[in-house]
Amino acid sequence: MNVGFIGLGRMGQGMARRILSGGHDLLVHDVDTSHLTEIVAAGARAAASVAGVCEGRDVVVTMLVEDATVIDVALRNGGMRDSLPAGGIHLAMGTYGVAAIRTLAAAHAEANQVLVAGPVLGRPDLASTGQLGIVTAGRDDAVERCGPLFQVIGRRAFHAGATPEAATVVKLSNNLVLGSAMVAMAEGFSLVRKYGVEAQVLYDVMTEGLFAAPAYKGYGKTMVDRSWDQVGSPITVGLKDANLIQAAADLGRVPMPGFNVYRDRLLGAVAHGDGDKDQAVLAREQARASGLE
Amino acid sequence: MNVGFIGLGRMGQGMARRILSGGHDLLVHDVDTSHLTEIVAAGARAAASVAGVCEGRDVVVTMLVEDATVIDVALRNGGMRDSLPAGGIHLAMGTYGVAAIRTLAAAHAEANQVLVAGPVLGRPDLASTGQLGIVTAGRDDAVERCGPLFQVIGRRAFHAGATPEAATVVKLSNNLVLGSAMVAMAEGFSLVRKYGVEAQVLYDVMTEGLFAAPAYKGYGKTMVDRSWDQVGSPITVGLKDANLIQAAADLGRVPMPGFNVYRDRLLGAVAHGDGDKDQAVLAREQARASGLE
Amino acid sequence: MNVGFIGLGRMGQGMARRILSGGHDLLVHDVDTSHLTEIVAAGARAAASVAGVCEGRDVVVTMLVEDATVIDVALRNGGMRDSLPAGGIHLAMGTYGVAAIRTLAAAHAEANQVLVAGPVLGRPDLASTGQLGIVTAGRDDAVERCGPLFQVIGRRAFHAGATPEAATVVKLSNNLVLGSAMVAMAEGFSLVRKYGVEAQVLYDVMTEGLFAAPAYKGYGKTMVDRSWDQVGSPITVGLKDANLIQAAADLGRVPMPGFNVYRDRLLGAVAHGDGDKDQAVLAREQARASGLE
Amino acid sequence: MNVGFIGLGRMGQGMARRILSGGHDLLVHDVDTSHLTEIVAAGARAAASVAGVCEGRDVVVTMLVEDATVIDVALRNGGMRDSLPAGGIHLAMGTYGVAAIRTLAAAHAEANQVLVAGPVLGRPDLASTGQLGIVTAGRDDAVERCGPLFQVIGRRAFHAGATPEAATVVKLSNNLVLGSAMVAMAEGFSLVRKYGVEAQVLYDVMTEGLFAAPAYKGYGKTMVDRSWDQVGSPITVGLKDANLIQAAADLGRVPMPGFNVYRDRLLGAVAHGDGDKDQAVLAREQARASGLE
Repeated sequence: MNVGFIGLGRMGQGMARRILSGGHDLLVHDVDTSHLTEIVAAGARAAASVAGVCEGRDVVVTMLVEDATVIDVALRNGGMRDSLPAGGIHLAMGTYGVAAIRTLAAAHAEANQVLVAGPVLGRPDLASTGQLGIVTAGRDDAVERCGPLFQVIGRRAFHAGATPEAATVVKLSNNLVLGSAMVAMAEGFSLVRKYGVEAQVLYDVMTEGLFAAPAYKGYGKTMVDRSWDQVGSPITVGLKDANLIQAAADLGRVPMPGFNVYRDRLLGAVAHGDGDKDQAVLAREQARASGLE
Repeated sequence: MNVGFIGLGRMGQGMARRILSGGHDLLVHDVDTSHLTEIVAAGARAAASVAGVCEGRDVVVTMLVEDATVIDVALRNGGMRDSLPAGGIHLAMGTYGVAAIRTLAAAHAEANQVLVAGPVLGRPDLASTGQLGIVTAGRDDAVERCGPLFQVIGRRAFHAGATPEAATVVKLSNNLVLGSAMVAMAEGFSLVRKYGVEAQVLYDVMTEGLFAAPAYKGYGKTMVDRSWDQVGSPITVGLKDANLIQAAADLGRVPMPGFNVYRDRLLGAVAHGDGDKDQAVLAREQARASGLE
Repeated sequence: MNVGFIGLGRMGQGMARRILSGGHDLLVHDVDTSHLTEIVAAGARAAASVAGVCEGRDVVVTMLVEDATVIDVALRNGGMRDSLPAGGIHLAMGTYGVAAIRTLAAAHAEANQVLVAGPVLGRPDLASTGQLGIVTAGRDDAVERCGPLFQVIGRRAFHAGATPEAATVVKLSNNLVLGSAMVAMAEGFSLVRKYGVEAQVLYDVMTEGLFAAPAYKGYGKTMVDRSWDQVGSPITVGLKDANLIQAAADLGRVPMPGFNVYRDRLLGAVAHGDGDKDQAVLAREQARASGLE
Repeated sequence: MNVGFIGLGRMGQGMARRILSGGHDLLVHDVDTSHLTEIVAAGARAAASVAGVCEGRDVVVTMLVEDATVIDVALRNGGMRDSLPAGGIHLAMGTYGVAAIRTLAAAHAEANQVLVAGPVLGRPDLASTGQLGIVTAGRDDAVERCGPLFQVIGRRAFHAGATPEAATVVKLSNNLVLGSAMVAMAEGFSLVRKYGVEAQVLYDVMTEGLFAAPAYKGYGKTMVDRSWDQVGSPITVGLKDANLIQAAADLGRVPMPGFNVYRDRLLGAVAHGDGDKDQAVLAREQARASGLE
């Protein structure tokens, strides 16, 4: 396929390289052209503009961080909507809110283009080895056409349905489950500490039993080691995603009290100056609330 | 060792049989003598009273369901305290509250006996194959003396500390983490349903990724299949344990808002007539709150 | 009427004096006999025992602080149940839990006596001037017989129903509404402080408008003035009542997430060393959670 | 003064009429010109455009419902910013979010105009009699210049500070306290109902005691009477304001768990089809959660 790619940050780099490795023709674009050096050296060609990376392409992938950015890139004069050919696919692989996805889908539909949502699960190391999870949603034929890309980018694509926002909501739900797991561990660690028990004991019980999974092994270990200065996913990014989750719950009319607790703890962490720490610092936030710090 | 065992329910049966298999001399007692048939056939001897099962024993294991029951068995006239020899160990392997454990520990100490807490993690099938997790706490020498029993009963013993309540609190914390995981899944499933997504999609994303663990695979599947009529752990038992968790949080002065959500959902499930269903029915309780049922 | 009165603390003193002023014959009893000096000087006679204060009385009022105390006084050998004449009324005017009230009601019924619950609303100053509110519940004829006492003790009696626990639950519900009001003010004060607004401004807006009521004027002022060292109702008493509220919600199967927040804040206040402060210190607890202290 | 007024809905009508009664020269504008008939008959002059109502005016009041509307009216080409004279005051009396107020304040400052925020407390009946509360914030001199208008519009102005958003935050905090009061009453009513007590009893206890205030008397009565079909403030408007409160808490980094419960109940009410009912319908939403409906 001939493919465009906008947004060559750390995640985007790995994904684009995987697309190249699949033998696809790849045009790339990023406002920060320093991001393009490596991928061009690997065989991609650079386009100087959004229009340049879209014209004549079958599929253009975006991997941009904010709702506002992807909407700007897609909808501004000379943006993706104005440049993608009729029938072209905008494959949005960042994590965006429901409202943003709806806006994009409607805009592309008016221009006889198709939005496919394909938010990914995983960090840059998984991106570079093609081990990401991908949640997909959009018109069946369009999702099918993206199949070869999903195959090289991810270990598995989970198809969520025919409306692009379906993928968004699944991705966000996975995040809310993660947030609640962190809150729960934090509560557990504070509780055992109050009774003089080392956090490590609870960690071992959890991760060798019912909770033998990456969410608990990873964030739990950071909580036990208090190593939240080594930041994987910072509190502020958690808060950004939490606001997307909340907006989705709002539009869907779903009261989510468990999620609210996670969101409150994120706010509290920022209020106490821990906004730049890894989300595992929620253990310290809970400890503060318990009079332990 | 010569061992006594009180409480031969489904869990107790499996555990007692493992003790026999370790070559220990085993006396057993249960108010319901029909529970004794099998284990006696397997080589144990039956004692007609609590006193009978305690006299001259090195260790007496209790596997009883309620705080009130174990306290009664231990402290009534002619109970364990009055019958265990000096230096004897009461190894309490049920899940009891902090206050109950403290009461037992103090009573046995006065009688020159020792309480060791060893609550187990796992269901009857794991009990019968010696695959339970065991959280242990108590005086170091006493815990060490129980070592041969832990070896045959469980796959691993996690030592929580020198005060018996430490084990209780670790066990309860593991339960609270489980409760929060169920609440989180329930919220996620309701959220995706509101956007027309099959619950199975979120299930797959979770259990093939960050949440590839028994807690999510088991309860999540029951939620997806709506098979909560096949009851593993019913809502009412969850509520009993939740009250122990809450009491521990109270005594420890730990605000646990995430846990409160779980407890409220349990109450709601009972209020809506689902008290006898499997705890996975929390997915339906959340769906009700979301206007989905 | 001939009346007995057990529990001459600060509240009880005022209430007993009002009964005297109504022209009733009054026998009084307290384990701390120093509490009896004043009321005896005012015309009551002292009884040396619970039995002594109950024998031959139409009604015996108890004004004791704890569930355990009133149950002990009523049910121990030689206690109220053993001493009140048949048809006699135990008028329980303290704030007790549902389970305690049920236990008392059943015990007195077996002895052909009647329990009437009459928990009061108000502090000692209102007790001494007969301005308490009283919530009443119990058998209609018995409540009616107590009418002359209610008239002198309180400004108004609110009748809740024929089962004594009905009064308990109304009293506890009034407390939960108060707790939530304090939480709400605390949140509001923290929010405006974050935007540089004096707490006094919000206080004025509230108390000259929708919230022109004692709950807001009193606790709100203490929050604004940070004068929680002058203790009206301490955190620890709030926590005791909160546990009664929670037990009532449990038995009734009522999820109360708003109340849970109040309870968690009380726990947090104790954890931070504020257990002996006035409940208005919840404003500081919320401020802590907001990174303001 | 010569005054402009934009937004002659039910609240605006009453307020504009009060301004006329103060002897001020009044120009009015509304996109729905039918709203202007009465006020013009009373002595105001109609302007055909936003520009027309702003030119040469000392102060222009806006009383518009949505953030988006007031921003559009103020910032669009030919809007208030382009038409108000230098030194002119935009007096924004609707309830807007912090971000919207900051946007307006910055825009007017650039144009040498001044934003004063003056959100009002009260319903149309209070507006028509000049009995509204007003929370004011903005540059001291500008607020002072608005004094004569505040005098005729309201019973009292509460000054919150020099930044316009201060008034917003006080108004929103008052709303959050109200929301929590409704949640608390709802919990109390469900709790007493579970014990067979009429809601009226709790209502009487509250409103003749600690909660003898309009918030409880008004919404409480609607809850007791189940008369939420007579809509004063509908759930959907509550939800709109709740989202403003939440955004303010977000920007200020204030975890507000009590408020979250209110917001969740609003969402639940919408999910159950009660979005158009009066907010007192939260009592039914709580009753649903308790298995009572």
